[in-house]
Amino acid sequence: MAPRTPKAVIKVDPQKRPWEQEKPLHNRWHPDIPPVAVVQEGELFRVETVDWTGGQIHDNDSAEDVKIIDLSTVHYLSGPIKVLDSAGVPAKPGDLLMVEISNLGPLPGDEWGFTGTFDRENGGGFLTDHFPSATKAIWYFDGIFASSRHIPGVRFPGLIHPGLIGTAPSKELLDIWNSRERKLVEDGENATTLGGILHTRPLANLPLAKGALLGKVESASKEWDRIAGEAARTIPGRENGGNCDIKNLSRGSRVYFPVFVDGANLSMGDMHFSQGDGEVSFCGAIEMSGFLELRCEILRGGMEKYLTPMGPSKLHVNPIFEIGPLEPRFSEWLVFEGISVDESGRQHYLDASIAFKRAVLNAIHYLSKFGYTKEQVYLLLSCCPCEGRISGIVDCPNAVATLAIPIAIFDQDIRPKKEVVPFGPKLINRGDVCKSTYDGALPLTKNLAED
Amino acid sequence: MAPRTPKAVIKVDPQKRPWEQEKPLHNRWHPDIPPVAVVQEGELFRVETVDWTGGQIHDNDSAEDVKIIDLSTVHYLSGPIKVLDSAGVPAKPGDLLMVEISNLGPLPGDEWGFTGTFDRENGGGFLTDHFPSATKAIWYFDGIFASSRHIPGVRFPGLIHPGLIGTAPSKELLDIWNSRERKLVEDGENATTLGGILHTRPLANLPLAKGALLGKVESASKEWDRIAGEAARTIPGRENGGNCDIKNLSRGSRVYFPVFVDGANLSMGDMHFSQGDGEVSFCGAIEMSGFLELRCEILRGGMEKYLTPMGPSKLHVNPIFEIGPLEPRFSEWLVFEGISVDESGRQHYLDASIAFKRAVLNAIHYLSKFGYTKEQVYLLLSCCPCEGRISGIVDCPNAVATLAIPIAIFDQDIRPKKEVVPFGPKLINRGDVCKSTYDGALPLTKNLAED
Amino acid sequence: MAPRTPKAVIKVDPQKRPWEQEKPLHNRWHPDIPPVAVVQEGELFRVETVDWTGGQIHDNDSAEDVKIIDLSTVHYLSGPIKVLDSAGVPAKPGDLLMVEISNLGPLPGDEWGFTGTFDRENGGGFLTDHFPSATKAIWYFDGIFASSRHIPGVRFPGLIHPGLIGTAPSKELLDIWNSRERKLVEDGENATTLGGILHTRPLANLPLAKGALLGKVESASKEWDRIAGEAARTIPGRENGGNCDIKNLSRGSRVYFPVFVDGANLSMGDMHFSQGDGEVSFCGAIEMSGFLELRCEILRGGMEKYLTPMGPSKLHVNPIFEIGPLEPRFSEWLVFEGISVDESGRQHYLDASIAFKRAVLNAIHYLSKFGYTKEQVYLLLSCCPCEGRISGIVDCPNAVATLAIPIAIFDQDIRPKKEVVPFGPKLINRGDVCKSTYDGALPLTKNLAED
Amino acid sequence: MAPRTPKAVIKVDPQKRPWEQEKPLHNRWHPDIPPVAVVQEGELFRVETVDWTGGQIHDNDSAEDVKIIDLSTVHYLSGPIKVLDSAGVPAKPGDLLMVEISNLGPLPGDEWGFTGTFDRENGGGFLTDHFPSATKAIWYFDGIFASSRHIPGVRFPGLIHPGLIGTAPSKELLDIWNSRERKLVEDGENATTLGGILHTRPLANLPLAKGALLGKVESASKEWDRIAGEAARTIPGRENGGNCDIKNLSRGSRVYFPVFVDGANLSMGDMHFSQGDGEVSFCGAIEMSGFLELRCEILRGGMEKYLTPMGPSKLHVNPIFEIGPLEPRFSEWLVFEGISVDESGRQHYLDASIAFKRAVLNAIHYLSKFGYTKEQVYLLLSCCPCEGRISGIVDCPNAVATLAIPIAIFDQDIRPKKEVVPFGPKLINRGDVCKSTYDGALPLTKNLAED
Repeated sequence: MAPRTPKAVIKVDPQKRPWEQEKPLHNRWHPDIPPVAVVQEGELFRVETVDWTGGQIHDNDSAEDVKIIDLSTVHYLSGPIKVLDSAGVPAKPGDLLMVEISNLGPLPGDEWGFTGTFDRENGGGFLTDHFPSATKAIWYFDGIFASSRHIPGVRFPGLIHPGLIGTAPSKELLDIWNSRERKLVEDGENATTLGGILHTRPLANLPLAKGALLGKVESASKEWDRIAGEAARTIPGRENGGNCDIKNLSRGSRVYFPVFVDGANLSMGDMHFSQGDGEVSFCGAIEMSGFLELRCEILRGGMEKYLTPMGPSKLHVNPIFEIGPLEPRFSEWLVFEGISVDESGRQHYLDASIAFKRAVLNAIHYLSKFGYTKEQVYLLLSCCPCEGRISGIVDCPNAVATLAIPIAIFDQDIRPKKEVVPFGPKLINRGDVCKSTYDGALPLTKNLAED
Repeated sequence: MAPRTPKAVIKVDPQKRPWEQEKPLHNRWHPDIPPVAVVQEGELFRVETVDWTGGQIHDNDSAEDVKIIDLSTVHYLSGPIKVLDSAGVPAKPGDLLMVEISNLGPLPGDEWGFTGTFDRENGGGFLTDHFPSATKAIWYFDGIFASSRHIPGVRFPGLIHPGLIGTAPSKELLDIWNSRERKLVEDGENATTLGGILHTRPLANLPLAKGALLGKVESASKEWDRIAGEAARTIPGRENGGNCDIKNLSRGSRVYFPVFVDGANLSMGDMHFSQGDGEVSFCGAIEMSGFLELRCEILRGGMEKYLTPMGPSKLHVNPIFEIGPLEPRFSEWLVFEGISVDESGRQHYLDASIAFKRAVLNAIHYLSKFGYTKEQVYLLLSCCPCEGRISGIVDCPNAVATLAIPIAIFDQDIRPKKEVVPFGPKLINRGDVCKSTYDGALPLTKNLAED
Repeated sequence: MAPRTPKAVIKVDPQKRPWEQEKPLHNRWHPDIPPVAVVQEGELFRVETVDWTGGQIHDNDSAEDVKIIDLSTVHYLSGPIKVLDSAGVPAKPGDLLMVEISNLGPLPGDEWGFTGTFDRENGGGFLTDHFPSATKAIWYFDGIFASSRHIPGVRFPGLIHPGLIGTAPSKELLDIWNSRERKLVEDGENATTLGGILHTRPLANLPLAKGALLGKVESASKEWDRIAGEAARTIPGRENGGNCDIKNLSRGSRVYFPVFVDGANLSMGDMHFSQGDGEVSFCGAIEMSGFLELRCEILRGGMEKYLTPMGPSKLHVNPIFEIGPLEPRFSEWLVFEGISVDESGRQHYLDASIAFKRAVLNAIHYLSKFGYTKEQVYLLLSCCPCEGRISGIVDCPNAVATLAIPIAIFDQDIRPKKEVVPFGPKLINRGDVCKSTYDGALPLTKNLAED
Repeated sequence: MAPRTPKAVIKVDPQKRPWEQEKPLHNRWHPDIPPVAVVQEGELFRVETVDWTGGQIHDNDSAEDVKIIDLSTVHYLSGPIKVLDSAGVPAKPGDLLMVEISNLGPLPGDEWGFTGTFDRENGGGFLTDHFPSATKAIWYFDGIFASSRHIPGVRFPGLIHPGLIGTAPSKELLDIWNSRERKLVEDGENATTLGGILHTRPLANLPLAKGALLGKVESASKEWDRIAGEAARTIPGRENGGNCDIKNLSRGSRVYFPVFVDGANLSMGDMHFSQGDGEVSFCGAIEMSGFLELRCEILRGGMEKYLTPMGPSKLHVNPIFEIGPLEPRFSEWLVFEGISVDESGRQHYLDASIAFKRAVLNAIHYLSKFGYTKEQVYLLLSCCPCEGRISGIVDCPNAVATLAIPIAIFDQDIRPKKEVVPFGPKLINRGDVCKSTYDGALPLTKNLAED
């Protein structure tokens, strides 16, 4: 018998719906969602996950499924997993839980993924005011490489990672989340701007019983109703890690999670074959089902030793990550810059979000000159291995953000050139991403520059 | 005679004051500052620059010079340089000017640099509410390596780059800058918050005749007064490039600048031996004098071909960068994360600046456990080759920003460890950065968490 | 259904013996070994392989199995696979066959490997005169990482690759092989030196019916006897690729093989979890069973277009390789040098093999000062991701070869240091690799320097 | 005053002849060549060197100067430099001398270099039987990049390094060198083969008074005659380092040299802007004048602690190298393979030199299909950043060597392609390297395959 075959603790069948899986999935954060598996420190174990939407998106040429997706049901997570030390004692609040991602990949037999932008009325994306319609691109995998019939002429190796991985919050931490996010919604919902920014996307996603899946919590019980009513949504990353979407968190990486409940209760999902920094289109990575092989270690008392809370509670902390030694090597990058002046020409104060938005828009416009539609580039920048940097954050009033794109992913030379090189035959009719029919109004675009 | 010896077009003497240099320097952006040199497409030429403060900061153990610096005089730039094509025809508005940085380095005989944080009342920095006092660290260079008596135990290779390089704005573009920055100041100056953010730093730096240095413009003339009164300050990066502080813009990189005036009028300065993404402490890179060897190419009509304006004018564009193939290789990184919840626990909406602030604060607190003061780490993260990433910008309400620090720059293992490793003798009394005596009030810190 | 699930064309069960596998394996090169599978250009397909010894080596603490191994039976290969173009026409002699290694890894459920040195009387290794006994180290895999109870204190990510992959030779090429290798044996067998070098290892491995496994060739037939009598052994790499042991031939790489027979008849095996350049201990990589996901393309007439024969026949060619973009990043290397002066102090003429031998011996001696036995280091350098370079091959009379070892694979700092750092507790009794009892004579070592 | 300006200890003027330099150069190894400079541990110092031929090769379009070069005069070295510890005590025999290459580059005002192959009758090169004539290519530098009018269509960043750096031998070590090299010449001079290899190049370069330059040794003295008669030539690398031609020994690298004489007596020269592993054409790097900024440290007793002699004397050791963190990143490589079968089809026994020769010949033939002459490619592979690897050294009878070439250095895509891409206009008439007229006989080529 092979000694290091990972113990399969959670299996999924991507052909089944999320609630039909053998070990129940969950799509909310709550301390009272019971563990479905137990692992011990040092043990190599394997977790499988469905894609974040639980199979709502299909391999076809219409974005209708992206348009009508029910976002109250995402993300479908595998777990929680209870972690014990080698003596069988669970991780305790105050510990750090080291999780090494020893290996990971697409689920055998399910080697494909999708990237999409949501309709502005149903989730939107970073550039929803420019790209309000739902779109979708399907990616197929040749081993480490991804390519798409909807975005021809690019092929790149994936830096596979879990978009979402985290420990369960304690009740105290959950209350902090709900309270601060509720305040944000209250402050913003009657205003069209928030922090001076027009907001056309949901300000936050507050607890919602509709769509909740709570693992082993008995359904149609009072307990279910209580938990569903207060459990946090999984959309944002928070103190427990969660949906942090760190694109380099791949093979050989380690995460040091704070532990808030007995056993740590680790959950994960939202596997990405590849993602660009920022994951700008929101459904933005190459989303897929997948597997992870993991190994844990408990650092007793590690929260106090290594983390420092910042805020009114001791719980305001963030995990620490250690990036692994395996990453595709790219030698040449084309870099687009943005400053914190918005598309209407208005000056903002050291706003890195706006600077990054400009950098992404600049890149989209530039690349659209090479035979792509802007929608194609928007999706591509969301999922290819591009790097989004905060280059300067101190030179009042302009933050400078940059987006660096590896040149080698394209089958043509995308650098600016002195000579006019006419587009070759392969660039004619590159086709298009698949779209839905958008019927929303676009009141804001009149303020936006022509794009 | 050697055929590729770069033509020395601008020399400086770092022992002289900025206004005593042979070819006059300038510290403002204006189309009417005349060129001091002319180069031709293809020609390799060499430009020397003083440090951005023009010698105001000294190699000693007091931060008093940083505290009292006159920021109305920065940045001292070498140029403008007029660029002709091979037929002698100048670059024209609408062209792109490709500038290749063939080589660059510290000025021979002046191989040292400084990193500082300004006093909160005189410029501040990204974390001025946490670190309101002026501090300073001096760095010495051993060839490609930098080390500091003020931050012992670290040594790293520099990724040398110009913090500031750009073409001259046209009058039309200058007016746009002045107008939008003035509006920002007007909107914000009577409020303590701007975009929901407390602002304790200058909102913008509007035109100011005091401190202006205008190159060949005749001093004590009407022309001088006019130009000084409308010329843009050099602090922020803008459409012309300028102070973009892109840390990877090193040997072998190329920049594609928009051309706004005849001859392009390229200027540069603010050489950095090394900088961290964000340059968080503001005087944040390892600031030095230096030289650049450059080569230009004119892409006629390139602005329309490759750039797309976004805003009410055709001039709202940004340069494009192509990063070179030489970069220090680091295999292991420790990564700190921040989300858009501020230090008081308040939730902000997808604010990457706040998320990055949290990531930096997390890193400072963590590294301060390894024998450093927080001030030392703040300076270190400002100037070491760390990467600031926008990891997620779509998961409402939390933007996720990360700060990745190469582990190899430390002479100790800074990873979280299961066992308690007591600090060795070399860690005791690591000393401290040099400080000024701060006498400002700190009204805001009562709202901030203990750090 | 997922569209890019690789088609499983050859499966193996590592618990079964080589001749019991569902699709018969083979361990000789011959044009008349019939294909066991057919694939089409563009198709993604999956091949599984047993380890090169077909299960002769076991996960235990004795090297007895290495000592008594029957080398007449290696390497056990999966294939041949016949390749057709998209119209169903087979690859033809004169074509190039591009094979992309889209993905590969250990066989699920069999995640371990071994590294060994053979007894000098049974195969030996590069340093057999210094290390005449059989030894063995067992490696377990944590995802991408390997570690061994027999060589504690090291852990490294694998750069997984097939040690052996190639197309079938034509009869004409086979005859060339047999003829030239027979001549070598004849020239050398009655001499103790060959090319001035003592040879204590087999000069070549000529055709041998004993131990042959010939796939679908009917056993106990005249045909079997004929083929077994003339089929080439698989030990050396040759014109068809074969046992080229190129350590970087990992995920995303491509090989352009010459095609010598109809259908190309591609075979492969000898999977390595990791290997050092040179594979010095002979059984030197981390040997394992495994899987490959592959994709082929036929370049019609490519041999003439891209290869140039050198020798009396048109068939004297070599494949071309294109290395993939994924490789562990190591930033720091310790490099050992050797020159073509042998261990007895004798000068040889530009002999890179001797120079490399010295570099490896230097590295072994150096690393043995850090708590390892020399046998442990010999095995380690054989399988860890070290680089063996021919640095200078022209400076008469010394060739210079170097061996570069990534520092990060050790859990201690192995650099030379000014201060004496006493070995810590974890270094005492690091244990040892498992050994066999060697009973051979050592007549040569009296001529060798003390090691 | 700047604190880390390197102390200029040796300056050269490349316009002067070697014997006219201010501090006398030397071109032999001998313990009695007196130091010309003294440095102290920790001190940063600067050494300038002439090119290895001392100005015999010129920037023109004829290879006549390469053909008639006087090789009895090379390499011209700067030094010896005596090294003291911080207390003023010299390095002693038995110590290790750590030398850090903090920075290095071309000599300002002399930014060009040359690559050549020698005439077979005057030095030859690795492939002298294929390329018997003298050829030359001139390279100009644009900062970090090199390009040549003689090999158009390639441009690459240099990995600048000293080809030759070493400590002075003791008399005992010198005697060992002379004795073993003399024996090689005696054994080989009356045979046409040595170790089974045809040798058409000098077997070794024994001491020769003609052409000797001995630094401060008084000329026309008995002492001069004695030293000139026994001093070792500088062509090969040996125990003291010397002409090791390690292409990665660039900025930030360290060498740990054995010390054989009081003060260590460090010398260096033969600066290379770039070199391929193997330096195959012999005058094979981009040869130039240059400067180095260095820092030393003495590890007392380090030879015994870190080196292990192998041979009849305690002096049979080699330096250790630590490669720096700065190297051009190349993501894609085309790899050519060779096995130890020579060009006539003859099988050799595990001979890495022959395998590497085949790999280089394969690469030359392949690249000559892209518009280059074979002579151009031979020169290019000698000096571009290609990697020569010993991939397999154990699979009897074939050693496998590989030559990996970074694809990005070419301005065309050199990968094998399915479609025939006709050479574009820029490939027609790529011109040629400059040649001499060769008048030697070529008796061997009748045995060699057509190339």
